[in-house]
Amino acid sequence: METTQTRKRIALIGAGQVGGAAAYALIQSSLAAELLLVDTNIAQRDAQVRDLSDVAFATGSGTRVRAATYHEAGQESDVVVITAGSRHTPGQSFGESAARNVSIVRNVVSAMTPFRKDAVLLVVSNPVDLLTSLAGELARLPRTQVFGSGTFLESARLRGLIADHVGIAANSIDMYVVGVHGENQVPAWSTATVGGVPLDTALPAGQIDRAALADECKHFSDDVIRTKGSTPFGIGAIIASLCASVLLDRRNVRPVSHFVPEFGCCVSMPAVLGRQGIVRTIQMPLAQEEGEAVAESAGVVKKQLDRILEDCTPRQW
Amino acid sequence: METTQTRKRIALIGAGQVGGAAAYALIQSSLAAELLLVDTNIAQRDAQVRDLSDVAFATGSGTRVRAATYHEAGQESDVVVITAGSRHTPGQSFGESAARNVSIVRNVVSAMTPFRKDAVLLVVSNPVDLLTSLAGELARLPRTQVFGSGTFLESARLRGLIADHVGIAANSIDMYVVGVHGENQVPAWSTATVGGVPLDTALPAGQIDRAALADECKHFSDDVIRTKGSTPFGIGAIIASLCASVLLDRRNVRPVSHFVPEFGCCVSMPAVLGRQGIVRTIQMPLAQEEGEAVAESAGVVKKQLDRILEDCTPRQW
Amino acid sequence: METTQTRKRIALIGAGQVGGAAAYALIQSSLAAELLLVDTNIAQRDAQVRDLSDVAFATGSGTRVRAATYHEAGQESDVVVITAGSRHTPGQSFGESAARNVSIVRNVVSAMTPFRKDAVLLVVSNPVDLLTSLAGELARLPRTQVFGSGTFLESARLRGLIADHVGIAANSIDMYVVGVHGENQVPAWSTATVGGVPLDTALPAGQIDRAALADECKHFSDDVIRTKGSTPFGIGAIIASLCASVLLDRRNVRPVSHFVPEFGCCVSMPAVLGRQGIVRTIQMPLAQEEGEAVAESAGVVKKQLDRILEDCTPRQW
Amino acid sequence: METTQTRKRIALIGAGQVGGAAAYALIQSSLAAELLLVDTNIAQRDAQVRDLSDVAFATGSGTRVRAATYHEAGQESDVVVITAGSRHTPGQSFGESAARNVSIVRNVVSAMTPFRKDAVLLVVSNPVDLLTSLAGELARLPRTQVFGSGTFLESARLRGLIADHVGIAANSIDMYVVGVHGENQVPAWSTATVGGVPLDTALPAGQIDRAALADECKHFSDDVIRTKGSTPFGIGAIIASLCASVLLDRRNVRPVSHFVPEFGCCVSMPAVLGRQGIVRTIQMPLAQEEGEAVAESAGVVKKQLDRILEDCTPRQW
Repeated sequence: METTQTRKRIALIGAGQVGGAAAYALIQSSLAAELLLVDTNIAQRDAQVRDLSDVAFATGSGTRVRAATYHEAGQESDVVVITAGSRHTPGQSFGESAARNVSIVRNVVSAMTPFRKDAVLLVVSNPVDLLTSLAGELARLPRTQVFGSGTFLESARLRGLIADHVGIAANSIDMYVVGVHGENQVPAWSTATVGGVPLDTALPAGQIDRAALADECKHFSDDVIRTKGSTPFGIGAIIASLCASVLLDRRNVRPVSHFVPEFGCCVSMPAVLGRQGIVRTIQMPLAQEEGEAVAESAGVVKKQLDRILEDCTPRQW
Repeated sequence: METTQTRKRIALIGAGQVGGAAAYALIQSSLAAELLLVDTNIAQRDAQVRDLSDVAFATGSGTRVRAATYHEAGQESDVVVITAGSRHTPGQSFGESAARNVSIVRNVVSAMTPFRKDAVLLVVSNPVDLLTSLAGELARLPRTQVFGSGTFLESARLRGLIADHVGIAANSIDMYVVGVHGENQVPAWSTATVGGVPLDTALPAGQIDRAALADECKHFSDDVIRTKGSTPFGIGAIIASLCASVLLDRRNVRPVSHFVPEFGCCVSMPAVLGRQGIVRTIQMPLAQEEGEAVAESAGVVKKQLDRILEDCTPRQW
Repeated sequence: METTQTRKRIALIGAGQVGGAAAYALIQSSLAAELLLVDTNIAQRDAQVRDLSDVAFATGSGTRVRAATYHEAGQESDVVVITAGSRHTPGQSFGESAARNVSIVRNVVSAMTPFRKDAVLLVVSNPVDLLTSLAGELARLPRTQVFGSGTFLESARLRGLIADHVGIAANSIDMYVVGVHGENQVPAWSTATVGGVPLDTALPAGQIDRAALADECKHFSDDVIRTKGSTPFGIGAIIASLCASVLLDRRNVRPVSHFVPEFGCCVSMPAVLGRQGIVRTIQMPLAQEEGEAVAESAGVVKKQLDRILEDCTPRQW
Repeated sequence: METTQTRKRIALIGAGQVGGAAAYALIQSSLAAELLLVDTNIAQRDAQVRDLSDVAFATGSGTRVRAATYHEAGQESDVVVITAGSRHTPGQSFGESAARNVSIVRNVVSAMTPFRKDAVLLVVSNPVDLLTSLAGELARLPRTQVFGSGTFLESARLRGLIADHVGIAANSIDMYVVGVHGENQVPAWSTATVGGVPLDTALPAGQIDRAALADECKHFSDDVIRTKGSTPFGIGAIIASLCASVLLDRRNVRPVSHFVPEFGCCVSMPAVLGRQGIVRTIQMPLAQEEGEAVAESAGVVKKQLDRILEDCTPRQW
C-alpha cells in the first residue's frame, strides 16, 4: 500500500529519560506519522507511551505514539534510534557502564535484524563511537546507514557559548568539535569561521578565550549527569534534529560519528546527512595537532572494537 | 529601559520533571526571551538549567534559561508557573500530598509577593483547584490574573480520543471536561460539537461510547503516575500552550481553573485567556446533572479552602 | 521507486496572481517536495517559477518549483489546484467571465485526464460551485476527490471579524458561511458557537450586529477585486491551508464546495478533509430559512450545470 | 503604556507587488503585532490591506494589517521598509528609474522624519546601495540603523544553486555575493566554505563551474523583471527574513548594504543584524581582485551620492 509506505516511522529503542525526551521533541515537530517505543521494561515503556500520547493530544500533533517490539522496530522504521543504556548508574565505573552497553547494543541490534533495507540507524548510547562502530559491524546495513550522535551536542554547545560571548547568532558560526566523544574530543579551532570568515579575522584578537570555552564545553554537563544521571533534554533535542535531517533528506553538514576508513572505526567528523544516512563526508583540513589528537583517540576505539569483535565472533555470527 | 520591558520572561517554580518538561517545550517554541528556574533544591535546579541550555544551543532557540530566586521570579516575570510538589511521593496518601502542597504554595507565593503588577500566575500543582483558589487569595493580584491548568489536559485528551475514534481532527471538535480536576471531573457532553454541530447530529448514533471514552480519559494516566510519579510530558505541553495563550494574548477559549463567584472558589470552566489572564468567562449551558456534579465538587473545594484560610489567617496575614 | 512515491507533489494550474500567491505560501510551509506550475502563458509561468525559486532559496524551503505540462500535472500530482481564470477581466460581465471559465475548466481537466488514481482536485476558479460540479463530472475521479474552495475564505473572514469584534480567538469560534459562493452565500448563524457554546449564550445580547457583520463579510473584497482584479493573497492562503489538510490527512472540518446528492451539484457545506479529499460530510442542522436559501441557490447551480453538460455531451465524451 | 511598547510594528512604504508580497510572508510568520501599509495610491493601499487581512483571517495570524500615513509609520514603527518604486516601468531607462526613485526616497524619508529613536530603516528600492546611502544621510538616525537588502537575495540564490548542484543543504554553505547590487556584484569565492571547510577542500575539483553559477545567479531574474516588472516573491521573502533578524535581535550574519567608512557610502558586506540594525561588521578577507571590484563599483555609488547630496542641499535641508 502506497499510503503505508509514505507514513514515516521512527523507533526509539529505550524508553527512559533520553528516549522520552527525544519523543517529546519529535511529537511537537510532527515529523513522523508514528513513533515506536521499545523497551524491555514494559511498565516504563507503556507509561511513556501514555504520557507522550497526552503531548500529541495537547499539541494537536500529527504524530501518534505506540509500544512496539524490537522486531517491529527493525522491520517498519525509517529511522531507529538506540538510546538504551544512556542513563548512568551511580557507582558504576566507565568500564562497567561501557561493557553493559556493548552487551545492550549487541542484543538490540540482533533482535532487530534484519532491518528494513532503507532503515537508518542512529546510535546515542555511550561510548558512542565504539557502539556506533559495533552497530555498524552487526546491523547488516550499508555502513553509510549507521551513524552516532557523536560530538553534535558538543559542537552545538560550543557554538552557542561562542555566540553568547560575542553576540553573533550561533547559526552564523561554523565550528565543530570532532573526534572521539568525551574526554578526548577535539575542538577544531583551525577551521572555525564566522559568516564564512576565519574566526581570527572575523573577531578582534583576544575576544574569546579558546581554552576556557573548550573546557566549559567539555565539562558543561558533568554536574547534570551527576544530578540527573543523564542529559535527556539536550540529547533529546539533538536526536530530533538528526531524525529531521534524515527523514526530510536535508543534506545538512553535521559532526556525527561515522565510519572513517582511515581509522577503521567510527569517530565524529562533519558529514552530509540525508535520507540514506551519511550522504557524503567533508574533508576537514585540521591543524596537525588536531589531526593527531583525533587519530590517537580513534586508535583506542579501534582497539576496543577489535577486541569486542574477536570475543563475539564465534558465538554471534 | 524599554528593551528590558519587551523581553518576555516566564518563571517556573519547581525544576523537577514537570518544570523541566515545560521548559523543554517552551525553549523549542522560542516564546519567551528568558526562562527563570526556581527551586529549593539547588543542585537539581542548576542541573536543569544546564540540560535545558543545551536544548537552546541545539535548537537555536531565542530563549535563554537561568536560575533565579523566588524574589526575582515574582518581580520580573510576565508569567509565573507553579509546578512545585507535582511529583507524587509513593506511599503518601492524597491527603498528605495535598497538605504538603498547600504548604508549598503558601510558601512560594509568599516568597514571591509582591508580584509584578501585570504578572499572571499559573498553578499546576495538585489538588489544582484548591491550590489555585489558595494562590488567588494570597497573591495580591487581581483574581483574573491567577488561574490553574485545571481540566485542560483532560479536555485535550478526551477530544483526542474522540478524534482518533471517529477520524475527525481534534481541533474540529469542541468538547470540554469541566469542574474539579480529578476523580470528579465532568465531561460536558451536552455542549459537545463537531464543526459547530452538536455531537449527536454530527455523528451517527452509537458511533462513540461516551461512558467508555470518559472513563478512559479519566484513568488514562493512572499507570503513568504509578510508574513515573508524574505526567511531565503531557502537563509540560499544556503549560507551554497556556503560556503562549497569555504571552501572545491569544484569546483562546480554554477549560482552566479560575475563580467562579457562584462557588466562591476556583474550578475549571471555559474561559478566554489573554495577556491579563482570564479575559472573559464563557457561560456554559450545562445539562442539569452536569451542573449539579460540578456544584457538588466545587462545594468540597470551597470548604477545604475556608478551613485552610481560617488556619493561616492569624499567623500569615 | 519508493522515494519517488513519497515525494509529495502539488500542481497549480494557472500561474497568475492567485497561483503565484498560493505557491508562495506553500513554499514557505515546505508542505510538498515539489510544486508544478502549469500555464498556457509560458513566459508568465517561467517568470513565476524563477521568482518562486528565489523564495525557496531565501527561506531554505524543502520545496522545489518547476514548470510542467498539463499531462505531467495530472499524472504525477497528489493535489491539483485549478486557479486558471481567477483574474477578473475589467469590463467583462459575470456571465461572460463564467462562460470563459467553464471553457477553461473543461479544457484543463480534459488535458490532465486521466489523473493519478489518488489525485485530489481542488477548484478555485469562479463561479466555484458550478466549476467544481463540472470538474467533478469530467475528471473520472471519485466524486469525493473533487472539491472547491467554496466559502472557506468567507467563513474564515466572518470568524475573524467576529473574533476581532468580541476579543476572542477566531479558532475558538465555530461559524460557517455555507451554500453557493458569492452573492447568495448563507452565514449559518443558527449553528454558530464560541468554545462549543451557542453564540447567543456565550456572548451578551447585542454584542454583535449579525446583519452588519454578514454584509461586511460578503462585500469585504469587492474593492480588492475592482483594484487588483483578484484577491490573490487571501485565496492563496486558503489554498495552502486546504492542500495541507489533504496532504497531511488532517481531517479538519472545512466549509468547502462538494457534491451534495440532495442538490445534484456542489455547494459549500462543512466536510471533513483528508488525503482522499472529502472524507465525511457533517449534517448541519440549519435553521429553516437558512436551509431554504441554500437549496434555492443550489437549484440555480444545478440548472446551469445541466445546461453545460447537455451542450458538451455530444462533442466532448 | 507598556503594552503599546511591546506590540511590535513594521511599516511597509509602498503597497505594490513587493510590499504586498513582503506583508504576505510577514503575516504568515506572526512576527509583528501590526503591519502598517503606506502608499500614495490610496485605492491600491486599501485593496492590499483588505486582501492581506484575509490572509490574517485565513491563517489565524497574530498580525493585523492597517493603512497608515507616513507620519504614523515614522513615529510608531520598529522597522520601516521602503519598497516604493520597486516596480520597473517598461520603457524607462535605468537612469530614469534611478532618478525617480531618488526622488521617492527623498520624499518618503522626509515625510517620516523624525523617526522613532530606535527605528530601523530597511531600503529595498533600487539602485539599493545608492538609495540606502541617501536614506542614511537623510534619516537623522544612527547610520547603523539604516541598511539595504543589497545582495542578500543574490547570496541566498547562489548558495541555493550551489546546494542543488552538489546535494548539500544551502544552510551548510557559507558564500556571499558582496559589493554593489546589480551588474557589478561580486561573488566572494575566496571565502566560500562548506561546513566551515573551504569550498575547494570540501568539494572535489571541478564539481562546480563557478563562472557559470555566478552568471546564472546574476541573470536569474532578468526574465522575471521583463515579465512581471519586479521579483515580488523573492524579495518579499528576503524582507520578511531581515525584519525577523532585527525584531528578534537574531544577530545573524547577512550580506546587506550598509555604510562602509572606507567607501563613504553603502555597499553589501556581511554584517551582524540585530534590534539596533547593523550590530557589527565582519571583516572579509577578500581576494585582491574581489576587493578591487568592490572598491571600484563603490566609487561609482559614492560619486552618484555626492552629486545628489550637492543638488538637494540648498533646497532640502
